[in-house]
Amino acid sequence: MKLKHLKSMILAYLLVGGSYVSNAQEISAMQAPKVVSPEVGKDNSVTFRVFSPDANKVEVNGSWMGFGDRLPLAKGENGIWSVSVDPLESSMYHYNFFIDGVSAIDPTNPEALRDGTRYASLLIVPGDGAKVFQLNETPHGDVSKVWYQSPSLESYRRMYVYTPPGYETSTQDYPVLYLLHGAGGDEDAWTALGRANYILDNLIAEGKAKPMLIVMTNGNAWQTSTLRNKPGIGAITRETYGQFQGKFEKSLVEDVVPYIEKNYRVIKSKDGRALAGLSMGGAHTITASIEYPGTFGYIGVFSSGIFDANADMAEMEMKFAALKSSNVQKYWVGCGVDDFVMESNKRLLSVLEKVDFEHEYYESEGGHTWANWRDYLSIFAPMLFK
Amino acid sequence: MKLKHLKSMILAYLLVGGSYVSNAQEISAMQAPKVVSPEVGKDNSVTFRVFSPDANKVEVNGSWMGFGDRLPLAKGENGIWSVSVDPLESSMYHYNFFIDGVSAIDPTNPEALRDGTRYASLLIVPGDGAKVFQLNETPHGDVSKVWYQSPSLESYRRMYVYTPPGYETSTQDYPVLYLLHGAGGDEDAWTALGRANYILDNLIAEGKAKPMLIVMTNGNAWQTSTLRNKPGIGAITRETYGQFQGKFEKSLVEDVVPYIEKNYRVIKSKDGRALAGLSMGGAHTITASIEYPGTFGYIGVFSSGIFDANADMAEMEMKFAALKSSNVQKYWVGCGVDDFVMESNKRLLSVLEKVDFEHEYYESEGGHTWANWRDYLSIFAPMLFK
Repeated sequence: MKLKHLKSMILAYLLVGGSYVSNAQEISAMQAPKVVSPEVGKDNSVTFRVFSPDANKVEVNGSWMGFGDRLPLAKGENGIWSVSVDPLESSMYHYNFFIDGVSAIDPTNPEALRDGTRYASLLIVPGDGAKVFQLNETPHGDVSKVWYQSPSLESYRRMYVYTPPGYETSTQDYPVLYLLHGAGGDEDAWTALGRANYILDNLIAEGKAKPMLIVMTNGNAWQTSTLRNKPGIGAITRETYGQFQGKFEKSLVEDVVPYIEKNYRVIKSKDGRALAGLSMGGAHTITASIEYPGTFGYIGVFSSGIFDANADMAEMEMKFAALKSSNVQKYWVGCGVDDFVMESNKRLLSVLEKVDFEHEYYESEGGHTWANWRDYLSIFAPMLFK
Repeated sequence: MKLKHLKSMILAYLLVGGSYVSNAQEISAMQAPKVVSPEVGKDNSVTFRVFSPDANKVEVNGSWMGFGDRLPLAKGENGIWSVSVDPLESSMYHYNFFIDGVSAIDPTNPEALRDGTRYASLLIVPGDGAKVFQLNETPHGDVSKVWYQSPSLESYRRMYVYTPPGYETSTQDYPVLYLLHGAGGDEDAWTALGRANYILDNLIAEGKAKPMLIVMTNGNAWQTSTLRNKPGIGAITRETYGQFQGKFEKSLVEDVVPYIEKNYRVIKSKDGRALAGLSMGGAHTITASIEYPGTFGYIGVFSSGIFDANADMAEMEMKFAALKSSNVQKYWVGCGVDDFVMESNKRLLSVLEKVDFEHEYYESEGGHTWANWRDYLSIFAPMLFK
C-alpha cells in the first residue's frame, strides 16, 4: 500500500462518525489479503495460514511439537499456505512460522509473546484447560515493573510485582510468593509465558487461593533487567557463571525480601513467605531455602532438582535437615514424567526422603514445558498460607 | 537441532561451573549460523542481515523509510542476505524483514516492540539523539499495569502508571501528566514506542523536568486493555465509533483522574494536572480540555488538531475562550512540517489565535512519527508544573 493511500485511510478513520478514532486491526488488515490464522475449529483442531505467493517452503513449529520439529504448510490457491493440526488439548501454546527457513511470528496474529531472546505467536485453545490462565471476567491484580538496589549484586535491578485485587484499598498485610524463572528467561517470563498474574486472579476469584503478592525477579545475576547486562559485563562466558554462583540467591534473600517488606503492606515472617521456581529457578529455590533456613515457610520446586550428580549428598542431607527443623509448612515438588531433569529431580526426592522431610510429589505428564509450569503454579498456589 | 542435543546443551549449561544457569542468547545462537543484525557502523550506517539459502527475495522496511517502501537485501555467500543503509540520525527506529513477502521480525535481534497489532524489531542508533530515551545509568521510575473501574464506559479497564524515582519513599504530593496515544495504539504505546518512562527518568535525573506521575490510558473506548474489547463488543464498525464518541474523554476526567487521586499521592488540583496526546490522543486532549475547563493546567497537542473540516468554528471559539479563562498555565502545540494532519493542526492554531489564547507552537521537521512524539514529550515535559 502506498503511503498516500494509508494517510487517506487514516484520515477517513479519524473522521468516521465525526469522531477521532481508528483501529489498528483495520489498518493492519489493509496490508495483506484476508488470511485467518490461527483458526481454532470446533473440535480444537487448528489451522495455520500465511500468504506468500513467492516462498519456496513454509513450515510451522509449535510448543505442542518437539523443539526442532517442523510441520510443512501446503501452498494453495492465491498463494495462501495452510496446514491443519489434529485437535489440541485446551491449553496455551506458542508457535513460529519458518518462511524459507527464516523464523517469523504469524503476521496475522496480533498476539505474540516474548520467550527470552525470541518472540512467538500466541495460541490459546479454549476450554477447561485454559480457564485458569485466561483473562476472565474477574477482578485483576496490577503488575508493576519495579527497580530496586541490590547491594549483593552491586546492581540496580528490575523485578515484576503482582499485587492482588483489592490491595490498594485494603489495610491488611498480605503474604508473598517469590516466583523464579528458568534458564533463558528473566523477570518477564512468569507473566508472559507463565500467566502467573491471571492464574492468581482466577484462583483468588474462585476462593481457591488466598490473595497474595507475587514477586518475579531476574535470576540472571549478571543482568539488570531483560536483555541488559550490568555495566562492565560483556559477553557471558563460563567464567561469568562461576563469578556469580550463589549470588542471586543471596540477593533474593538479603536485598529483594527486605525491599518488598519495606515498600509493600506484607507479612514479614516465614509463614507469610513462599518461594518457588522452575528449572534453574527451582535450583535457586533449593539453594536459597537451604542457605537461609527459616526465611520461607512454603517451598515449591518445579521441574528441577539437584543438578550436580557429584554433589556432596551428606552435606545436602545436613542442610535439608536444618531446613526441615525450621518448620517448613509445605515442601512441594512437581516434575513431568518425560522431563530430561528427572534424574536431578530424583536426587532431590531422595534427599527429602533420607532426612524424613515431609513433602508432596506431583508427577505430571509431559516434560520441561510452560504448560506444566502453569499447571504446577495453579496446584501450588492454593496450598499457600493456609 | 534435534531435541536430544538441545537437552544435552541445556544440561551442560545448567552444570557449568557447578552453577545452575544458562543463557537464552547462547541457546538461541545454536539455532542459526552466526549472523549479526542489525550492525551499526561507526558512522551510524546500519547493516541488516538474515540467513536464508532458500528465499527468493528478502527486503526490509524501517521507520526511517516511507511506510510502504521496501529495500531489497542481496544474497551473499553462505545464504546470508544483507544490505547497508546510509548513516542514520541518532534516534530510535523499528524495522521488519519481508521474507518472500512475509513480514518477519529480525530473528537475530532479541529486541522487538509492539506497534498495535504488529511487532517490529528495535534499532537504536546511539548518539546525542538517543540519550533522552535510552535506559541510562540513572534512577528509574516504576511502570505499573493498573486495572480500574470506568463507570462512564461501564467497563473494567487497564492503564499504565509511571511513578517517578523516589515516589515510594517520599511523602510529597506529585503532579500528574495524563498522556494519550494515537489511533492504532493503546495503553502500551507510550512506553513501548514512546519510551515515556525512560524520557522522564532522564529529564528528571538531569533536573530538567519535575518528578511527576505519567498516566497512560487506553483511548479506544470499546476496549478494556490491549487487543481486548469489552464484553458484548464484536467487530469494530463505523457504528462502534459513533457509539463511543466523546465517551473516552468523559471516562478520563470522571473515572481515571478520581482513581489516580484516590490511590496515588498526587496534587489534586488543576495546576498539578497536565494533559497531552498525539494524533487521535491530541483530539482527545482538545475535547477533554474544552469540555472540562479548569481540570488541566497544562495542555499539549502533538500532531493533531481539529480534524473535522466542517466543525462549528464559532462554537469551538466559545469553548476555547472558556478554557482560556480557566487560566491554563501552558498550551503547547507541536506538529511536523510534513505531517498529513497539518490542515487540522492549522485549524487548531487559528482558533487559538482567534480567541487570543496564549500558546506555544513548535513546528518540527518530519511527519506523523514516533521520533517526533518522543521529541515533543522531551520538550513539553520540562515546561510542566513550574
